[in-house]
Amino acid sequence: MTHKRIRIGMVGGGDGAFIGAVHRIATRIDDGFELVAGALSSNPERALSSALGLGIQKERSYDSFQQMALSEKQRADGIQAVVIVTPNHMHFPVAKAFLEQGIHVICDKPVTKDLDEALALKRIVSESGAFFALTHNYTGYPLVRHAKHLVDSGVLGNLRVIQAEYPQDWLTDKVEDTDNKQAQWRTDPEKSGMAGCLGDIGTHAFNLACFISGQKVQEVSADLTAFVQGRRLDDNVHTMLRFDQGAKGMLWSSQVAPGNENGLKIRLYGDKAGLEWSQESPNELWLSIFGEPTQKITRAGHGAGEEANRLSRVPAGHPEGYLEGFANLYLDIALAIHAIEDGAAVDSVQGFIPSIDDGIEGMKFITAVLTSSKNNSAWQTLNTDHLNE
Amino acid sequence: MTHKRIRIGMVGGGDGAFIGAVHRIATRIDDGFELVAGALSSNPERALSSALGLGIQKERSYDSFQQMALSEKQRADGIQAVVIVTPNHMHFPVAKAFLEQGIHVICDKPVTKDLDEALALKRIVSESGAFFALTHNYTGYPLVRHAKHLVDSGVLGNLRVIQAEYPQDWLTDKVEDTDNKQAQWRTDPEKSGMAGCLGDIGTHAFNLACFISGQKVQEVSADLTAFVQGRRLDDNVHTMLRFDQGAKGMLWSSQVAPGNENGLKIRLYGDKAGLEWSQESPNELWLSIFGEPTQKITRAGHGAGEEANRLSRVPAGHPEGYLEGFANLYLDIALAIHAIEDGAAVDSVQGFIPSIDDGIEGMKFITAVLTSSKNNSAWQTLNTDHLNE
Amino acid sequence: MTHKRIRIGMVGGGDGAFIGAVHRIATRIDDGFELVAGALSSNPERALSSALGLGIQKERSYDSFQQMALSEKQRADGIQAVVIVTPNHMHFPVAKAFLEQGIHVICDKPVTKDLDEALALKRIVSESGAFFALTHNYTGYPLVRHAKHLVDSGVLGNLRVIQAEYPQDWLTDKVEDTDNKQAQWRTDPEKSGMAGCLGDIGTHAFNLACFISGQKVQEVSADLTAFVQGRRLDDNVHTMLRFDQGAKGMLWSSQVAPGNENGLKIRLYGDKAGLEWSQESPNELWLSIFGEPTQKITRAGHGAGEEANRLSRVPAGHPEGYLEGFANLYLDIALAIHAIEDGAAVDSVQGFIPSIDDGIEGMKFITAVLTSSKNNSAWQTLNTDHLNE
Amino acid sequence: MTHKRIRIGMVGGGDGAFIGAVHRIATRIDDGFELVAGALSSNPERALSSALGLGIQKERSYDSFQQMALSEKQRADGIQAVVIVTPNHMHFPVAKAFLEQGIHVICDKPVTKDLDEALALKRIVSESGAFFALTHNYTGYPLVRHAKHLVDSGVLGNLRVIQAEYPQDWLTDKVEDTDNKQAQWRTDPEKSGMAGCLGDIGTHAFNLACFISGQKVQEVSADLTAFVQGRRLDDNVHTMLRFDQGAKGMLWSSQVAPGNENGLKIRLYGDKAGLEWSQESPNELWLSIFGEPTQKITRAGHGAGEEANRLSRVPAGHPEGYLEGFANLYLDIALAIHAIEDGAAVDSVQGFIPSIDDGIEGMKFITAVLTSSKNNSAWQTLNTDHLNE
Repeated sequence: MTHKRIRIGMVGGGDGAFIGAVHRIATRIDDGFELVAGALSSNPERALSSALGLGIQKERSYDSFQQMALSEKQRADGIQAVVIVTPNHMHFPVAKAFLEQGIHVICDKPVTKDLDEALALKRIVSESGAFFALTHNYTGYPLVRHAKHLVDSGVLGNLRVIQAEYPQDWLTDKVEDTDNKQAQWRTDPEKSGMAGCLGDIGTHAFNLACFISGQKVQEVSADLTAFVQGRRLDDNVHTMLRFDQGAKGMLWSSQVAPGNENGLKIRLYGDKAGLEWSQESPNELWLSIFGEPTQKITRAGHGAGEEANRLSRVPAGHPEGYLEGFANLYLDIALAIHAIEDGAAVDSVQGFIPSIDDGIEGMKFITAVLTSSKNNSAWQTLNTDHLNE
Repeated sequence: MTHKRIRIGMVGGGDGAFIGAVHRIATRIDDGFELVAGALSSNPERALSSALGLGIQKERSYDSFQQMALSEKQRADGIQAVVIVTPNHMHFPVAKAFLEQGIHVICDKPVTKDLDEALALKRIVSESGAFFALTHNYTGYPLVRHAKHLVDSGVLGNLRVIQAEYPQDWLTDKVEDTDNKQAQWRTDPEKSGMAGCLGDIGTHAFNLACFISGQKVQEVSADLTAFVQGRRLDDNVHTMLRFDQGAKGMLWSSQVAPGNENGLKIRLYGDKAGLEWSQESPNELWLSIFGEPTQKITRAGHGAGEEANRLSRVPAGHPEGYLEGFANLYLDIALAIHAIEDGAAVDSVQGFIPSIDDGIEGMKFITAVLTSSKNNSAWQTLNTDHLNE
Repeated sequence: MTHKRIRIGMVGGGDGAFIGAVHRIATRIDDGFELVAGALSSNPERALSSALGLGIQKERSYDSFQQMALSEKQRADGIQAVVIVTPNHMHFPVAKAFLEQGIHVICDKPVTKDLDEALALKRIVSESGAFFALTHNYTGYPLVRHAKHLVDSGVLGNLRVIQAEYPQDWLTDKVEDTDNKQAQWRTDPEKSGMAGCLGDIGTHAFNLACFISGQKVQEVSADLTAFVQGRRLDDNVHTMLRFDQGAKGMLWSSQVAPGNENGLKIRLYGDKAGLEWSQESPNELWLSIFGEPTQKITRAGHGAGEEANRLSRVPAGHPEGYLEGFANLYLDIALAIHAIEDGAAVDSVQGFIPSIDDGIEGMKFITAVLTSSKNNSAWQTLNTDHLNE
Repeated sequence: MTHKRIRIGMVGGGDGAFIGAVHRIATRIDDGFELVAGALSSNPERALSSALGLGIQKERSYDSFQQMALSEKQRADGIQAVVIVTPNHMHFPVAKAFLEQGIHVICDKPVTKDLDEALALKRIVSESGAFFALTHNYTGYPLVRHAKHLVDSGVLGNLRVIQAEYPQDWLTDKVEDTDNKQAQWRTDPEKSGMAGCLGDIGTHAFNLACFISGQKVQEVSADLTAFVQGRRLDDNVHTMLRFDQGAKGMLWSSQVAPGNENGLKIRLYGDKAGLEWSQESPNELWLSIFGEPTQKITRAGHGAGEEANRLSRVPAGHPEGYLEGFANLYLDIALAIHAIEDGAAVDSVQGFIPSIDDGIEGMKFITAVLTSSKNNSAWQTLNTDHLNE
């Protein structure tokens, strides 16, 4: 079969950015995409020099995303999808511009800066007929998929307790006062929205808990804090969770916990078994069937299951990591886009690719947490389905 | 110096009990105590056969604790202290009986079955002039002491976040319906008090957080659940914590989390450093000074500090465990009792031995958590100092 | 059943010694022994003050072990067994003195200072009719027993590879030139025998490999080194092993490996499964049945087996350690001595208590390793059975 | 700066092969290469279909590597380098063919099927003026580079002990009798050379030990075994090592050790400090400075150093793995090739890229180990420098 790469463009992600480079590597690992256009920076010079450095032709380096959307739409070899890796507040207008041209959108999380935008975006996606993917990359880890499979297939029994956490330490000091650009925009309400640590990493933990458990969070009780003096957004998130099918949980995310680099971790307990997975040791999944010794399931190892094997490139014991997990998401996105362009169904991977609905769920979570925290941790429902029409 | 053992008696802890045997081993490890009397069971036959099996003379095996308190008081070689290892509801009357005879009391936790009893007990202790110790044994681990030392000496800076957890799995099924005696009384409100998992292990996690941090919990927001159908007391505890000096935290304890045997773990984060310690790997303490690589401090190893060394019997790398941690508490209790009987001050170890005040603090915590949980997790203060007069 | 403690005396182990104190704790943990006599030091004053500090009566603190053997034999309440915790070169004369009085001997390892002494000792033991135990304490860990059980019951299939290691770091510098008494005698050929690290800890690793595998080492190829300049005995041991039933292995022990505290570890691989156990995490045993996920078996946890459970005092997750492992050996020794004194068979625990034969096997190992190393690592057989008649 | 990809071709690595796909991903991760030609299989049909599937134009898919070397040399846009991923016995003829056309060669290990070929290849490389890199990929891990840096800069002091191991388990059964192609050629002396496990993975461990320590192995004492009945090449390797600057070591590699997936691990001990690194947890390096607590150094974390940071794409806590380590080697190869083509020096990365000399060293090691093992483990020197002229 002849090889067909999907032509993509990128908005944001110029020199010095973090997540843009990550997306580019993720698209290259399995050779399913070709980066041919970009509006990589709001600074035209930086946009161009970044583009050339990435092998994008000069004429396809754009000063504005609007121009890019229009121009690419006109070209016979125009991009099939755009990757949005800007600060959060730009997600909505950029996504809108491309969706309105019928160009597929691959958007970093959180989906928008607030829930209203997210709901509006859902309507736009729906009208556009284009494909929209939200890059909750941690769902791409093979053993996260296997964890979901174990829950789905009943190995854990009825879920009772779900403990999610995501501590980091890089904002322990007030680094936003230095020239650290990542810290600057992520602690700035204008660019990040009203949630700091909550939106930056809390949503990942939330998304992962929902993805693996197959349950929705129904209500939250939260206590947010900005521990660093003068910080404008929360840097520590404490929440209790109640899920819609009876499980209860906690979610802790923090960016002021020294010694934690990127400590996303999830534990799920049912009446038959428990599961534990840590992002920093992603090639191991610990399964404890009640009454039996705990098992160490390894990616592509004995007991890893079909889905984890499908997403493994190298044998067990040859560690895959963050970039491969991200690439797995792009692998499924490529399958989906090819299917769509071929007029086929995308069912097989559909359930695995975070969608606009997951984005809305995340924004509901953020909104509810902010509300609860303001109301001295009063339980706050996420159920705003009436708004969702 | 000639060796002097402290003469002790025990109430509870007959054949088949768990914690009584643990206390006895703990008293023997450093040879500081001699078990010479007991009312080991409410069943007279079992009391006697248990006593003989332990080398207690027949005449000092008692059918009732009241009789034991009176008789031992009369003897020239009577016990100097009593160890109380009954179910929770008996702690108060037994402690009272011995304190009223001026006999020192070493009591398992939680101190009493409710806060009122605990406050009453404080008055009795105070009037008796006798010594009262509460065996929150986890504070006896050498590296827990070192953790406290690191916090006290400012290595962590201002504490911001304290995460405590204590999951187990042995109540995943409804074992109280079998002949499991431990499960029977621990899930029975008549014997355990109103708190299940909360009183059994949640208080340990609470106590440990306060012990290491040197802070008090000011208020709690809690969500208790009995996941196992028909269970009469909570088997899962979710709480958010606010400490009196500004730190915030979470405490999770559970007895229905498959794969967790005795997972007491605490993490503390200040503006300068973070600490992590797990009861199941008690010979390691992880110290992360912000900006430096994480250090693995080992018991009696490089960097372990004086207090940890004082409480170590064997060199680093030769694991000490639960029983030695328990014995450390008895080591300090022996120092205190010798000091008291010699008319000397007990200052040096006083701060390390959990006291009636710690017991009261624990009962306030239990009370506040129960109240908060009933009130849909409304924050509930522990400050009941007015009651405490 | 009335409690009967075995009356013991101790030779060596005065104030400041390490292993004597360990033995005493081990005898107390399960209350099976009573220390009533001692020749605790060659220095009479230290001997007496040490004895009084341990609660030994003045008249039973002896200036010489010979005198102790004779006097205790005469007493109606004389010791039933002696514990020998002197430097290696004294093991033989002390053991001989007590065995000749028909007093049971519990002797620290290595059994003697050379093979000839060990063979002579075997004859003495045999003629005495008394019981002789060698305290290879690591065989007392519950999960070591379970590992042996798994091998014995065929779970691993035919053993192919056995990797044993025992690194430490405390002799990285030339501490024998300081006032470190442990270092002084352990690096002194007059007191330790011709083997340094090899005799001190290499024999433990050797013993453990044989104990678990049920195989004997047939020949060794070895390369010994004294890395620290001026050190008189080896501080690093490299050996390749060939076992009598076809398995092959390696054994590394070192006392100059910074970062290793007491890193005894063993891995065994058969054609059906593999096993891994580390002394520093003694409550976990890793079992990998080929084709299945690795299992984490915990002491007293699911899958730990009868023998491990018999030797567990507290539930899974409550760590037991070095002292409890040592106490397990004493538990079995007590069973054996009671059986002997009752005229009964000691079969049930016999296979678990290291004997004079294990001591001889260890001395053969030491001898063969020294010979091989001198002969530029030429394979050297341990088979000296003709000497053994 | 405009982006310039290096044009490469590949020999071997058609559909179903393992290591070819790995090399392709490694070349793509940092976008420094473009795969434009191939002789991907000795089967012409499979060669073509594999090529098309990879986006190679039909005319540049060749039936033979000889034809490919000649044709590509003629093209203005011909390949600049060839990647050789065939079974071992083909490395020499393929490398020769391309080197004779002045095309750079990137060759998988072991360099050739025997030492004579390796020495011959060195002459060919030298005469060609082309660049030759050997893909000992494990040297590309950031923390392996940092380990080397710590040794080079004296942090460990004088090296004393080096312990390398590389256990796997996939050949526990006789899978070469199934349709497992990897097992078939790797256990076939015609395709693998005379070394089985030794050549396949033992050389990796050997290379890593030399790379980090900066020392050469001077002599070896070895004991090879084929444990699986009927297997034609060794599946377990036991060796003792003596290094040229006084260090001693052991190297164990095995493919019949159940529970080990890809357990490459190295530990180095000097008179000042020790180091430990495991390939399965590649983002952690354990540094133990004697007298201080062990430090956990993380990739891109505090204390990771410049070289590790240069080779990190994502922040600490976002795990990088096997493919990124492999890509790091390609990153340096790209720097070297660009430098060569620009007529500049390649000094900066030269020391990091395994060369023909490393390949020869590996073949000397294999040869010496085979010889020693045949001679009942007699020490065998690797010093064959006279042959090397």
